[in-house]
Amino acid sequence: MASLRDYIRVASGKGKADLLIKNGKVVNVFSGQIERTDVAIWKGLIVGFGDYEAKAAIDVEGDFLCPGLIDGHVHIESSMVTIPEFARAVVPHGTTTVVTDPHEIANVLGSNGVRFMAESARGVPLNVFFMIPSCVPATHLETSGAVLRADDIKTLLAEPWALGLAEMMNFPGVISGDPDVLKKIDAAEGRRIDGHAPFLSGKDLNAYLVAGIRSDHETTNQKEAKEKLKNGMWIMVREGSTARNLNDLLPLVTPENARRFFFVTDDRHPRELIEEGHIDSMVRKAIRRGMDPVLAIQMATLNAADYFRLEGLGALAPGYRADILVFDHLSRFQIKKVFKDGRLAAENGRTVPSRFSRSSFSLNRFKETTQGMGTVQIKPLSKEALVVRGEQPQAKVIHLIPDQIVTKKAVRNILLKNGIAHPNVGEDILKIVVIERHQATGNIGIGFVQGFGLKRGAIGSTVAHDSHNLVIVGTNDPDILKIVEEIKSLGGGMAVASDGKVLASLALPIAGLMSGTSVEGVDSRLEKLHRAVKDLGCQVRDPFMALSFLALPVIPELKLTDKGLVDVTQFKIVPLFGEG
Amino acid sequence: MASLRDYIRVASGKGKADLLIKNGKVVNVFSGQIERTDVAIWKGLIVGFGDYEAKAAIDVEGDFLCPGLIDGHVHIESSMVTIPEFARAVVPHGTTTVVTDPHEIANVLGSNGVRFMAESARGVPLNVFFMIPSCVPATHLETSGAVLRADDIKTLLAEPWALGLAEMMNFPGVISGDPDVLKKIDAAEGRRIDGHAPFLSGKDLNAYLVAGIRSDHETTNQKEAKEKLKNGMWIMVREGSTARNLNDLLPLVTPENARRFFFVTDDRHPRELIEEGHIDSMVRKAIRRGMDPVLAIQMATLNAADYFRLEGLGALAPGYRADILVFDHLSRFQIKKVFKDGRLAAENGRTVPSRFSRSSFSLNRFKETTQGMGTVQIKPLSKEALVVRGEQPQAKVIHLIPDQIVTKKAVRNILLKNGIAHPNVGEDILKIVVIERHQATGNIGIGFVQGFGLKRGAIGSTVAHDSHNLVIVGTNDPDILKIVEEIKSLGGGMAVASDGKVLASLALPIAGLMSGTSVEGVDSRLEKLHRAVKDLGCQVRDPFMALSFLALPVIPELKLTDKGLVDVTQFKIVPLFGEG
Repeated sequence: MASLRDYIRVASGKGKADLLIKNGKVVNVFSGQIERTDVAIWKGLIVGFGDYEAKAAIDVEGDFLCPGLIDGHVHIESSMVTIPEFARAVVPHGTTTVVTDPHEIANVLGSNGVRFMAESARGVPLNVFFMIPSCVPATHLETSGAVLRADDIKTLLAEPWALGLAEMMNFPGVISGDPDVLKKIDAAEGRRIDGHAPFLSGKDLNAYLVAGIRSDHETTNQKEAKEKLKNGMWIMVREGSTARNLNDLLPLVTPENARRFFFVTDDRHPRELIEEGHIDSMVRKAIRRGMDPVLAIQMATLNAADYFRLEGLGALAPGYRADILVFDHLSRFQIKKVFKDGRLAAENGRTVPSRFSRSSFSLNRFKETTQGMGTVQIKPLSKEALVVRGEQPQAKVIHLIPDQIVTKKAVRNILLKNGIAHPNVGEDILKIVVIERHQATGNIGIGFVQGFGLKRGAIGSTVAHDSHNLVIVGTNDPDILKIVEEIKSLGGGMAVASDGKVLASLALPIAGLMSGTSVEGVDSRLEKLHRAVKDLGCQVRDPFMALSFLALPVIPELKLTDKGLVDVTQFKIVPLFGEG
Repeated sequence: MASLRDYIRVASGKGKADLLIKNGKVVNVFSGQIERTDVAIWKGLIVGFGDYEAKAAIDVEGDFLCPGLIDGHVHIESSMVTIPEFARAVVPHGTTTVVTDPHEIANVLGSNGVRFMAESARGVPLNVFFMIPSCVPATHLETSGAVLRADDIKTLLAEPWALGLAEMMNFPGVISGDPDVLKKIDAAEGRRIDGHAPFLSGKDLNAYLVAGIRSDHETTNQKEAKEKLKNGMWIMVREGSTARNLNDLLPLVTPENARRFFFVTDDRHPRELIEEGHIDSMVRKAIRRGMDPVLAIQMATLNAADYFRLEGLGALAPGYRADILVFDHLSRFQIKKVFKDGRLAAENGRTVPSRFSRSSFSLNRFKETTQGMGTVQIKPLSKEALVVRGEQPQAKVIHLIPDQIVTKKAVRNILLKNGIAHPNVGEDILKIVVIERHQATGNIGIGFVQGFGLKRGAIGSTVAHDSHNLVIVGTNDPDILKIVEEIKSLGGGMAVASDGKVLASLALPIAGLMSGTSVEGVDSRLEKLHRAVKDLGCQVRDPFMALSFLALPVIPELKLTDKGLVDVTQFKIVPLFGEG
């Protein structure tokens, strides 16, 4: 381990640097200027600009250099891969630091899940900092795999990888002064507390802010952003796979206020990681929309580092981590080389293999985390369990809205035969089932959903926000049971079945959320799943995403959890039959 | 004590605010914009902008509101008053937060001195944060009253009022990897470490920076500032009583890099505090020089708060401290009202007396700190002790340079009578004496100084950087002894004597550095001292300031400490007689 004394010795020119990157045009995020200079690196840190003796040199021949990019808020689980595989996907795009909220795995495994994620980040050429999930479970209307209480949060916050409290989604709890919520806020004293406050405004926003919450990534329009900005929030500009706010928010950014904005992805699925990239895609988009490239790079680097108080990250300077990108055109921002801790980690979109060799570790280590039991614990299910008995045909049906996570509450006449309710494929009223999968309680919620368009078979997934129980939509009970069986044998994941046969599947053995394979591997499996679902007549663009939000009881209007049908507007369980 | 829950309740509009400041134009340092709105305050914090019910209201009729100003680096001892009196002087000028380095008192009293300062700040309507002195004593060539070792620093850093490590003046120690210096830097891990690096450049600067030092207040020209800025230093723009760098540095500031600049005073004497003001004078000066007023206000508020990570300070927003200034013209920046913690603390340049009632406490508490012994411990001095015997007339003489703290080393023929060296008033070669005053060691350094112009008498002071021993310049030994006697009886301070009579004096009983009275009281005493010195023929503009730097052995070329004559270029004690 190099000591401070050694770094000083090399920086002062008395010892040889490891590497000299020569003839780079350094984008200096402090001065806002670009200067042609050499950069000397020793044992992971930049020791100085200028001419140094070094053991090795790379001439970048006038290419630009800038700091590695920072994603200020991301749920890595949404990419359905482990952290080593996520790193393999994003590092070639220039991301060298992420601040992640392991909210999904925490809902399955609590503190153990968070610790597993932190452990799996070790040795990976990506700086991974953790915000500790604030809202596990999200509600009392569902059964999650775990609970994170204020004490658990406090314990986790003591870890070196923990930065603060993750997005405080329970804004009604904050505003109403819910004691359990305030205990969590107290537990995070002196740390950053991220917000999650869509459309919050006026005195409600003020109440949320006096609690010390200082950022928001759910801001979707300029009016909202203006109010949050002037009231002291950092605005996390988000471009996820679905939620995309950069175009709407960018016009608000000026040199005078830019320091309060930075880039986040929140959720990126494998397809967008492959096709668009990561934070680099946001920098490119911002530049294309006319933003000064240096300002865009500040937003992707220094600003997030400032907000999270990440010492030695987000800039290139003596004593800073040698996380350095090489790119050729200031306006194109196509990344050619990525240095992580002063060593090449990716070049021309490809990783340097020797630096990414930990993915199998994650899977094995995960098995230890659950003592080999996995995270799909379902009480054996009889055919009878899926039977819905009703005395009146009128029932509440979840009505899907294309490409949205909100649903409508519809009241429809259900197909009743001998007092038993059946799916009605002709009217696209299908059965939806949510099966508790964490503790084998046998909890099962059953309802009906309209809008999937499946003509045959069933589809199911253990990715189902926020409790990630097993959610299945099907045209018939035998195929629904087939899905249960398949997902059990996968140890979690996604599947499509029809006529008693599994047509396609994706194993997500890590908490029922993540694969042990690569982003590309997951993407090609997802592609097969999507084709299979389409072949069954489904019209929904991304049926598994639609499925994953049907059990989320905080998004209106009608949802289904393992505890039953939830009228979100009333925030309570309601009977399936009848209007009220 | 109000709880978070209570703040939320009031912010959400469910309880009455204490105060509503109506019709202000709020200078928003986050957005860079100005908006007319009301500001609601409850128990010291801003709870929200907008219309709130409140127990009291003040209509500011379209006046501007901005956050209280921050002085990012100040030695309060230089103002020669206690913290309560300092607050009384600066709060009417809009300063509501200072980050102070109690370097002077630490040289006299070590940790006890630092703790005394922190204690004396309690209850004062000024936020006072402490950087822990890094270089006590400044050198081994003098006897200080105390030593602060790495362990002491670590202990002090654990205090809630301690932010980080104060200006690391020993840059040669850092660059050479001095183990004691590096231990101090290690002790401050994770905290801010302020720099002090005049003209440091190139690899030496890089070596200094890899140690994690991230600011500098000794930057005096643009070239220097540019290099420090791009290498990751925050630039503290200083306007002290003597060192004034604003005019030189301001042209470098742009909206793109302004966040890395903020304002400090370093040292302000009573006269400048009274005549110019404090940080407000820097804002005015910046605006007069054409800077956008909002940018100037950001530099005086948010930027320092960002650097020091001062949560809830440096801006006006919900959850932020209600330290609010009211002023009328954006470009004139004349402060009309100062709210500290939501209550009026000053108006039209006058303090609200009920909020400033602690100065006598400081003096009493200080007596406890030294157990009534004071800090002037001088071994009884005989006339004989002042006698200088020499065998050759050629001696090294400290040659004053007007208005500078550097001196020249001159070699002159001294007036020798019977082997005894005498002052030579005709040639303005006077005797200078530095008497150790902390531990009554009897250490005494004697030399000769040219440039004061005194025709009669002697002057002396216990303010003498950095060890603050008693330094006296005189035309004759009896008057020098008179000064010693007077300063002993004052318990420290400044005095002028002639013909065996004290002509004027200023008691500085608090560590020999600070008065128990007000800034105005000290200023009028200083005025009398200056007049008396002038009457004795002295030509120097500020003779006590000149005196205070003659014992500082880190500023070239020739200085005198209690250990003897110091050739600063050689950094060693040299004999008085002879050239070498």
